[in-house]
Amino acid sequence: MARLKGFEKLTNVDEALSLFLKVLKPKKLNSVSLSIEEALGRVAAKNIIAPHDLPAFARSAVDGYAVRAQDTSEASQFKPKLLQLTNEDTVGEGKAKQVWTGNPLPSGADAVIMLEHTRKVKKSIDVLSALTPGENVSIKGEDVRKGEVVVEKGKRLQAHHVGLLAALGMSHVEVVDKPKVAILSTGNELVELGKKSKPHQIIDSNRYVISGLAKELGAQPVALGIAADKEALITAKIVEGLHKADVVVTTGGTSVGVHDLVPMIIDKLGKPGVVVHGVALRPGMPTALAVLKGKPVFVLSGYPVAATVGFEVFARPVILKLLGVEREPRPMLKAKLTKRVSGALGRRVYLRVHVYQRGDGFFADPLRTKGSGLLTSMTRANGYVIIPEDREGLDQDETVVVQLFAPIGGVSKCLEN
Amino acid sequence: MARLKGFEKLTNVDEALSLFLKVLKPKKLNSVSLSIEEALGRVAAKNIIAPHDLPAFARSAVDGYAVRAQDTSEASQFKPKLLQLTNEDTVGEGKAKQVWTGNPLPSGADAVIMLEHTRKVKKSIDVLSALTPGENVSIKGEDVRKGEVVVEKGKRLQAHHVGLLAALGMSHVEVVDKPKVAILSTGNELVELGKKSKPHQIIDSNRYVISGLAKELGAQPVALGIAADKEALITAKIVEGLHKADVVVTTGGTSVGVHDLVPMIIDKLGKPGVVVHGVALRPGMPTALAVLKGKPVFVLSGYPVAATVGFEVFARPVILKLLGVEREPRPMLKAKLTKRVSGALGRRVYLRVHVYQRGDGFFADPLRTKGSGLLTSMTRANGYVIIPEDREGLDQDETVVVQLFAPIGGVSKCLEN
Repeated sequence: MARLKGFEKLTNVDEALSLFLKVLKPKKLNSVSLSIEEALGRVAAKNIIAPHDLPAFARSAVDGYAVRAQDTSEASQFKPKLLQLTNEDTVGEGKAKQVWTGNPLPSGADAVIMLEHTRKVKKSIDVLSALTPGENVSIKGEDVRKGEVVVEKGKRLQAHHVGLLAALGMSHVEVVDKPKVAILSTGNELVELGKKSKPHQIIDSNRYVISGLAKELGAQPVALGIAADKEALITAKIVEGLHKADVVVTTGGTSVGVHDLVPMIIDKLGKPGVVVHGVALRPGMPTALAVLKGKPVFVLSGYPVAATVGFEVFARPVILKLLGVEREPRPMLKAKLTKRVSGALGRRVYLRVHVYQRGDGFFADPLRTKGSGLLTSMTRANGYVIIPEDREGLDQDETVVVQLFAPIGGVSKCLEN
Repeated sequence: MARLKGFEKLTNVDEALSLFLKVLKPKKLNSVSLSIEEALGRVAAKNIIAPHDLPAFARSAVDGYAVRAQDTSEASQFKPKLLQLTNEDTVGEGKAKQVWTGNPLPSGADAVIMLEHTRKVKKSIDVLSALTPGENVSIKGEDVRKGEVVVEKGKRLQAHHVGLLAALGMSHVEVVDKPKVAILSTGNELVELGKKSKPHQIIDSNRYVISGLAKELGAQPVALGIAADKEALITAKIVEGLHKADVVVTTGGTSVGVHDLVPMIIDKLGKPGVVVHGVALRPGMPTALAVLKGKPVFVLSGYPVAATVGFEVFARPVILKLLGVEREPRPMLKAKLTKRVSGALGRRVYLRVHVYQRGDGFFADPLRTKGSGLLTSMTRANGYVIIPEDREGLDQDETVVVQLFAPIGGVSKCLEN
């Protein structure tokens, strides 16, 4: 599909993404076997199946005495039942065997009376309360049954998944490779951080923003540096990126002007090339989505906030698909908007807000909607609110859904941690 | 303060934490200077001050022509204004100078007309719309003013903070050292993952859970391994932990029985020793909080879920204080509880729930409240709901605040990303 020239028509965000995915057909990357410790935060490549029950045997859940529940019936502080202590493997009628938390339940026993609910009487105990069968016992397979899926493919492994794999005796796990994301900043005005800059040069900050966003997703950034607005330079860098990485992200050189080299260069580099150019998105309107050598190329605005929103809306879901992650929305909450904001009919607006908790409620202060160059509109915000295409704006006190990208501010004391 | 023997009295959670903090007096750790790329996810050690304005000079926000706004007054498609192109440094009356996005605004000019709103006429342009002063110009200091705090101390650096530091020409930043968290698992029944286990031994999974939770907070785990329930072994490990780390976490050996060695050992090791033992918390009741050599020692249950809740409630806020993080609540949202659950009067209950979105609403399915050994009650959950001490339970359809520790499930199509 040829690119849309001069943004005569902007493509709707959902249509742009679905069209792009149809052309790209992203596939989950290869997998690698890692020790479970290294696998924290990585994505399971396939369903992980329990090799055996957990617990593998019935065990005591407390410190106490293993007994037959029926022998304790009607026992109470006022009417204790006397049971004889035994050291045998089996607990017979009228007997009790001392066990500690985690000990296997002796055969014959079906419950454990807690130490605190007994009184030692020479070689016997007085049982001070009645038990039901199974009480204070972790039965075999109570946590996990053999053959059960304990971690679904596409799930990101957190502390407890790793703990569960350890408990099941699994020392290694197959995880999806980290997608490599090549990052190129284009623009004559740009200079690298640390290089001596001439007056009126601008330090390339986009590479750090995009690299950080990629890392936060569990991808691995590959730095391509800066290319001035020259066809040969940009071409060489994009070719390098396609060679080294699974994804290429460029910033700059995508608005409508004589400097709009990147989409043109991409179309020269091969088919299908640019799939979408110009999206009904604010900020992020000049975003282009392309496919070269079967790999996604995201051509984002040179403005850091517009580049971020373009990344959020298009690169994030594609990278998650390469990771095999089915669904991983940002944390969401409903909050009351503290001020009216205007949208842009026909465009989807990503409003940056600062969400905080006051008393029982959550509130969202909108930050300015303009200024797609203003990094502080991101660093001062902790969430996005989407203003849909069919809304002229959002009203004061309207309840909105916030997608959080940083912790909630001003939390009341009782919830603070 | 002596430890409470036999849990005759359980300490309220808030009182336990505040008492512990009063004795511990946790101090922010030392800081280290890192490159901004390495600093992603780390915590700013002090306020970061902008060394100059950003942008450092007024610049064009678009591709177009720098002009004097007053020269465009009343211009329209039907009544264009003709301006003469110039190559001089200064834009005089009736003149226009071509500029690209990011170019400094030439002196004399106070606005930029977008290329799309002009028509080239030989060495002049027809301006097709009127401008107000400042239009399409990023003024000096618009994003950040010199001397402004751009990142507050205690803030965790995300992609945009790093980008902002780069834009300001700052290549390095002072961040707080990673707290080192020594992790010890105690218990005769435990065996290391990968070591051949005898029948009825249990693989130590707690070390992986606690290590993962520590890493997720930005701390560095230090493995102490397993100690059997012998005073000399546990003593040696705790001493090693205090030597190597800023925080010691033990699991196991803290309930009331002859195996309750850990709090007793800690009290022998020095003052103040155990500050709290036995907390009105479920799961996590047998938690003990201690201070040795000025360092916090968290004595957690041997049950993985109880250990997790003990870590969440007590270790997490202390580690955040060592990091100098003022406030970093987990993401929160309000959801409707789908089933009645019982609490435990007088105790704070950490209920595990699975939160999902259906249509316009968020719903929380409670997972079982018992079974503090069941790792799957964590791996299947994505959030905690607190049942306060003064509630017998929570009602079906009650609106509850969920603290999220994993992504929200079942998100509707429009919000999915």
